[in-house]
Amino acid sequence: MKLWGGRFEEETNKEVEKFSASMNIDSRLWMVDIQASIAHARMLGSVNVISPKESDEIIKGLLSLSEDIQNQKIQFNADAEDIHSEIEKNLTLKIGAVAGKLHTARSRNDQVATDTRLYLLGQLVEFEQELKALQSYFVKTAKNNLETVMPGFTHLQHAQPVSLAHHLMAYFWMFQRDKDRILDSRKRVSSLPLGSAALAGTGFPLNREQVSKELGFTKVSENSLDAVSDRDFVIEFLSNASIIMMHLSRLCEELILWSTPEFQFVQLGDAVTTGSSIMPQKKNPDVAELIRGKVGRVYGSLMGALTTLKALPLSYNRDLQEDKTYLFEGLDTTRASVRLMLIMLENANWKTEKMSGALSGDFSNATDLADDLVKKNMTFRQAHEVVGKIVNDCIKNNQKLENLSITDLQKFSPLFDQQSVNCVQHLQVMRARTTAGGTSPNRVLEQIHQATALLT
Amino acid sequence: MKLWGGRFEEETNKEVEKFSASMNIDSRLWMVDIQASIAHARMLGSVNVISPKESDEIIKGLLSLSEDIQNQKIQFNADAEDIHSEIEKNLTLKIGAVAGKLHTARSRNDQVATDTRLYLLGQLVEFEQELKALQSYFVKTAKNNLETVMPGFTHLQHAQPVSLAHHLMAYFWMFQRDKDRILDSRKRVSSLPLGSAALAGTGFPLNREQVSKELGFTKVSENSLDAVSDRDFVIEFLSNASIIMMHLSRLCEELILWSTPEFQFVQLGDAVTTGSSIMPQKKNPDVAELIRGKVGRVYGSLMGALTTLKALPLSYNRDLQEDKTYLFEGLDTTRASVRLMLIMLENANWKTEKMSGALSGDFSNATDLADDLVKKNMTFRQAHEVVGKIVNDCIKNNQKLENLSITDLQKFSPLFDQQSVNCVQHLQVMRARTTAGGTSPNRVLEQIHQATALLT
Amino acid sequence: MKLWGGRFEEETNKEVEKFSASMNIDSRLWMVDIQASIAHARMLGSVNVISPKESDEIIKGLLSLSEDIQNQKIQFNADAEDIHSEIEKNLTLKIGAVAGKLHTARSRNDQVATDTRLYLLGQLVEFEQELKALQSYFVKTAKNNLETVMPGFTHLQHAQPVSLAHHLMAYFWMFQRDKDRILDSRKRVSSLPLGSAALAGTGFPLNREQVSKELGFTKVSENSLDAVSDRDFVIEFLSNASIIMMHLSRLCEELILWSTPEFQFVQLGDAVTTGSSIMPQKKNPDVAELIRGKVGRVYGSLMGALTTLKALPLSYNRDLQEDKTYLFEGLDTTRASVRLMLIMLENANWKTEKMSGALSGDFSNATDLADDLVKKNMTFRQAHEVVGKIVNDCIKNNQKLENLSITDLQKFSPLFDQQSVNCVQHLQVMRARTTAGGTSPNRVLEQIHQATALLT
Amino acid sequence: MKLWGGRFEEETNKEVEKFSASMNIDSRLWMVDIQASIAHARMLGSVNVISPKESDEIIKGLLSLSEDIQNQKIQFNADAEDIHSEIEKNLTLKIGAVAGKLHTARSRNDQVATDTRLYLLGQLVEFEQELKALQSYFVKTAKNNLETVMPGFTHLQHAQPVSLAHHLMAYFWMFQRDKDRILDSRKRVSSLPLGSAALAGTGFPLNREQVSKELGFTKVSENSLDAVSDRDFVIEFLSNASIIMMHLSRLCEELILWSTPEFQFVQLGDAVTTGSSIMPQKKNPDVAELIRGKVGRVYGSLMGALTTLKALPLSYNRDLQEDKTYLFEGLDTTRASVRLMLIMLENANWKTEKMSGALSGDFSNATDLADDLVKKNMTFRQAHEVVGKIVNDCIKNNQKLENLSITDLQKFSPLFDQQSVNCVQHLQVMRARTTAGGTSPNRVLEQIHQATALLT
Repeated sequence: MKLWGGRFEEETNKEVEKFSASMNIDSRLWMVDIQASIAHARMLGSVNVISPKESDEIIKGLLSLSEDIQNQKIQFNADAEDIHSEIEKNLTLKIGAVAGKLHTARSRNDQVATDTRLYLLGQLVEFEQELKALQSYFVKTAKNNLETVMPGFTHLQHAQPVSLAHHLMAYFWMFQRDKDRILDSRKRVSSLPLGSAALAGTGFPLNREQVSKELGFTKVSENSLDAVSDRDFVIEFLSNASIIMMHLSRLCEELILWSTPEFQFVQLGDAVTTGSSIMPQKKNPDVAELIRGKVGRVYGSLMGALTTLKALPLSYNRDLQEDKTYLFEGLDTTRASVRLMLIMLENANWKTEKMSGALSGDFSNATDLADDLVKKNMTFRQAHEVVGKIVNDCIKNNQKLENLSITDLQKFSPLFDQQSVNCVQHLQVMRARTTAGGTSPNRVLEQIHQATALLT
Repeated sequence: MKLWGGRFEEETNKEVEKFSASMNIDSRLWMVDIQASIAHARMLGSVNVISPKESDEIIKGLLSLSEDIQNQKIQFNADAEDIHSEIEKNLTLKIGAVAGKLHTARSRNDQVATDTRLYLLGQLVEFEQELKALQSYFVKTAKNNLETVMPGFTHLQHAQPVSLAHHLMAYFWMFQRDKDRILDSRKRVSSLPLGSAALAGTGFPLNREQVSKELGFTKVSENSLDAVSDRDFVIEFLSNASIIMMHLSRLCEELILWSTPEFQFVQLGDAVTTGSSIMPQKKNPDVAELIRGKVGRVYGSLMGALTTLKALPLSYNRDLQEDKTYLFEGLDTTRASVRLMLIMLENANWKTEKMSGALSGDFSNATDLADDLVKKNMTFRQAHEVVGKIVNDCIKNNQKLENLSITDLQKFSPLFDQQSVNCVQHLQVMRARTTAGGTSPNRVLEQIHQATALLT
Repeated sequence: MKLWGGRFEEETNKEVEKFSASMNIDSRLWMVDIQASIAHARMLGSVNVISPKESDEIIKGLLSLSEDIQNQKIQFNADAEDIHSEIEKNLTLKIGAVAGKLHTARSRNDQVATDTRLYLLGQLVEFEQELKALQSYFVKTAKNNLETVMPGFTHLQHAQPVSLAHHLMAYFWMFQRDKDRILDSRKRVSSLPLGSAALAGTGFPLNREQVSKELGFTKVSENSLDAVSDRDFVIEFLSNASIIMMHLSRLCEELILWSTPEFQFVQLGDAVTTGSSIMPQKKNPDVAELIRGKVGRVYGSLMGALTTLKALPLSYNRDLQEDKTYLFEGLDTTRASVRLMLIMLENANWKTEKMSGALSGDFSNATDLADDLVKKNMTFRQAHEVVGKIVNDCIKNNQKLENLSITDLQKFSPLFDQQSVNCVQHLQVMRARTTAGGTSPNRVLEQIHQATALLT
Repeated sequence: MKLWGGRFEEETNKEVEKFSASMNIDSRLWMVDIQASIAHARMLGSVNVISPKESDEIIKGLLSLSEDIQNQKIQFNADAEDIHSEIEKNLTLKIGAVAGKLHTARSRNDQVATDTRLYLLGQLVEFEQELKALQSYFVKTAKNNLETVMPGFTHLQHAQPVSLAHHLMAYFWMFQRDKDRILDSRKRVSSLPLGSAALAGTGFPLNREQVSKELGFTKVSENSLDAVSDRDFVIEFLSNASIIMMHLSRLCEELILWSTPEFQFVQLGDAVTTGSSIMPQKKNPDVAELIRGKVGRVYGSLMGALTTLKALPLSYNRDLQEDKTYLFEGLDTTRASVRLMLIMLENANWKTEKMSGALSGDFSNATDLADDLVKKNMTFRQAHEVVGKIVNDCIKNNQKLENLSITDLQKFSPLFDQQSVNCVQHLQVMRARTTAGGTSPNRVLEQIHQATALLT
């Protein structure tokens, strides 16, 4: 029988039951549900809303139930309405009618909000570690590639030479912001709804602070109507997850691109590539493609959550049940993608000779020739135009800028000298970007120091 | 061993295998996969790419496999890479090495595209019936409510009286467009990719038309590169599904609103409402809320599919594997929502006295009073202003427009007469909307005739 | 004074007026607004709701107003509420109080829906021509490149050689589906709402069919409540536009990729590329990047429209005013992107030697070697594995598959012969894909014939 | 001539120029562009990359230009490429060739990122004030309505009585989280990209810290590749804005609902409502509808930005130009919506008698009757069922729970007594919700104290 059957004279339609059930989604909440129930039962006992004995019985029952589930002595009924009623049913089987007292001063509305937050708090701790592990890869690999020169791209055209270290560290900072956003969001997740009851609070003399402390929340929610209908934290997580997936998709795009025979900047190992059922020669960067493809899953979950919340009047509405589908889809996809990205990178073989080879004759040293003229007091605009003409001339005559002699250069401006010739060698070009945040090895080392500090 | 293991020296990483696997998503394709394989095998035999005997063996094996699956003699391995390799593996167990010939002149790329289309075509047939069943409810209920007068709303304010029949028929036409869109989309789903092989076609002398006819496609795809990477049909379906969900959400919103004690225009039966675990008096329109909430799931799937496809170079990329997650989520959610909407409506008790009662003194007859003046040759603008003043006066004196006498009216304009008094009675107001598409009973009957013709 | 001021005692707040105004969005509707008003006025006259003389005066006034606007004798007031009141105001200035009669039996609700549909119908005609122009480019260029061999990609890896003609024709078919979708959608746009009045129809003896014919609609709307609140056609257009943008983004991605020094498959001309303010050597494929970037604008408009419509009760709600922002953003962006794509392509120089050169030693001929074994009666699975080993061997010994001798091949299988050597030459590989829809020149010519027929 | 014309031999196509131009979007950046240029020029002078005299000339020129623009002595060319080149052009007109030196060690890539961040930082300060003003309304109105009792809703059904104060304070906390999110995001906006040059940093001995301090940034960006391609801050803002719009849409929904004749909980004043051109009696809550409708605009901008960023390789790509369209659309819409919401609320007349009247006989006091039994030691489950039966009985006999006598109640359980009768009076029910965060006046006063502290 349903918990709320009293007033109802007719059975719920079977298809309605199936449509309404969330067991397949929320069964993963069993552990936090029990944890929150224990805290609630302990508090009810300590403020004498139930007797200390009842409190003890309930807590023992819940602990025992938890063990049974972990030991798979109890199998959930896949057709149950949701995990909360399933646990309540099992608790009643174990300890009898006293189990009913657990529901005192608690509603499904504040219970489910509490469980979801508690679950997410735990997930975020693990997720942070996974992000750190990924970041560590960039730091570690950057250290070994401070002078690995490669084309830096804008518009996917060779722009200026950079080091592989600098390129990889760009991703470090993206994921650092991602971690910051998650950290910032924690304080908004960490607000305890329990005690808000259905929507208005309750008259029982609850000690909400006690429950909050036991469960590791940082505060109790300030307004019960808000508490049972607030799903900001789900959207905020999905937004943060979307940005993470976006960052991953950028790196995936590069790994796919760099794996082509045209680029060959990287070779992904057999362990992380797949072949073709029809083309024996293929080694496909499937993992990168899958992560890139899955960005749509997380964007879609975000858009779904925003849509569901749009224009809902206060307070709890059943629409909110969908929150967990979005949240878990976002969590699972994003966490797996971060982990798989690391596995893929650990199986990546960076082809550093191909990278440096790609620079030959690519004119990504042209800016430095212009800067050379600026230092000799030409305006940047003029310098830019002079060098534009040299580049055109080289292209027509199939020459490389780094091979031009002083004489060659002086045909375009008398200001050129030996320094001009030196400054266009690609390694030198990379080393010369010495502003804070630039690609010169010392500056990248600075980044690495900062990064290392942030990781520990 | 993987189908493509030949060139690989290292095992695929286990987490990569898990991440890449799609078995939990695509296992539902087993039947269409076998169906398409049978057609492929038959054709290979008929053009002598394989021998007739081999063709027969394969077809018999596939039929037997299909039976085994239906009789649950074979259980799929949940950890398989995907349904296609799982079926191939089982076929090999059944008929030996000849099973390998089934893969001749076929790639996973054209196979999976074929299966997905074939599956969707079948689903669309069933879905169309479900939409028709829902539409039939509106027609049936409209017939009995041609003179059930109720407030017609704009801006959620009472605007003009309409009949319940007219209101319900508005939804008939929405779902009629939905069905039209699905019908239009069928021709684009119904293009056979099989024979495109991996991306470029094949040299085997295939008879693609034969396969197309056997499987019920209307044409073969024109370009193999396009065929293996085209997922327009997934997006088009999800867009159509999104509009359906949007339509359902509008009706849900009304059912929820009309179930409030303030409106009471409808009472949803016990079979389709749920109670509260804490508030014994509650009867909640959960089904309507759930459908309204699930609109986000389908919007999200659409956005996900669009995101995944964005900026993918030709031809097949592994990102496309996500297509089925979006498609099935959209299909399942939308079909279930349409079915549940019908169940909910069949358990709806329309409170027609509340509807007509709500009109009393609501001024939704004011337009007619203005039109009365216009017919007596006042400009609409002036008439509008005169009636605006009468309405204000009624509000101040707590009077109802339909109760004003000729004398009352003539204080505002000498043009008013007995006809003016008659024309503001709500039932009369509703009956008077006699333009094509209007709410007068005859016009709604016209709609019902049209609708009935469209349903049969 | 506002059209609806009668009942109001207080002025509208100035910020509210500004917030509510849509003049900056809907002023482009002036021409269709006048056109629809003319048809309405003519019909009102012909059914004697207004006198033939009044009808004539209004029509003449509207025609004169239209001329004034085109000759810029009249400037719209940018602070007007919307284009409809602005036109009504100007008509009144021109012909006096009789202008007020134009509003008889018409509401802003059915008027604005009519205008938007009429505008879109006109736009779709022009848009179809732009899509055809783009398609013509593919056909024209394909004709000249039937034997221009290039790598066909899957997973962005070289898969099998295809012709440039075949690759370009893949896009022809995408835009063909896009045109089909637009054509299908026209019948749903082409339903006349006028005559639905505010929401319920009207009592005036309107001849809606006459108006529909004059304006070129194919039918009148069936249900007035639906007619004033239906924005399906906006969403359907935005969905179709999203798919078009997705197709364009795929081509953009390829053009950007192919413009890199690593690929060099195409050179975009100076007229459609831009340089850098700091790097003199750069030629950036900005147009391709911009189109690819703008895909987000159209996806966003689609998502916006879906969000706005979610859970709106019937019938008209002011939320619907946003429809035009979404629609015009989608229309403008998509039409401009299609036009600019054509300009970019017309300035593209296909580097066909680079394309064919990229095939050398790329193993994209491996499938054919496997197929050769299959034809000699090996199962495909075995053949696949044998060739996988040959590929591995070539890579280790830095050899090209197309250069292996019979002897080389026979080390792996005795079935190899001269035919095996011939079949792996890339041009031959491309020519051999002779199934319907395949890349062989004859089959592509077939596509071109079909395409030409569809364009004329 | 373009800044980058040197290498180009052909003119840019006119349509390409128009398509690429962003002047209509980014002209609002003129002031921050000049501000950032002044800081850059000052720093270039102080590190002697340009002479102090040149630095002075440039700064004076920029200040004078800024005045000219404010005094409208200079009108921007609407056809300019963008605001940056327009300002550079005007500066050159004013101070001659030395203007060219301003571009030293700066690229459009780092310049535009700097401008956008600087602009957003300024906007966020103003936005925060607007959010506070809105929050102040809730606090002020809550203070006066601590005992204004009304139905609290779940599932849009009457659940339990709450005070209007409590209901309004729920919104206070939503906007408090919104402000927190914006505050958290500021530190990620406040990272100076200038000095990153095109992508790799520069060799000029820049003092980035000096520029950062002058412009009020909190730090300089750590990695130049990341700095020129990071648009996280745009997405993060749009996500925060989306949540704000979602909150507003919930309140709009309630205001629309409560304005219906069925609810009548609120009356919106003439200043913020609009009438109908055809129905003289209408007062429509257009502002609430428009804000609710515009939620789609902001969701759409968020989705657009996420789409545009998906899978972009490093570093700057022209796709990123779209960022400002999304950002400004989100900023303008959300800020205006917050301001208009406040104006609407200030013109709202809360009909408190209607609110309390709505409670009569609504059974929202049923929970308290159940709790009464629980306090008398019945389990909650049993109590729930007993009260469910009483409610059913009342409905059948058309009685109100608050009117039942002890005798009436004792038919269902002997545990009922005078306390039972007292506890179901609605005002008492509301007062009894005394847990932290509950609706009892003392607890709401606590909220108000917390809120007041947060606002000052």
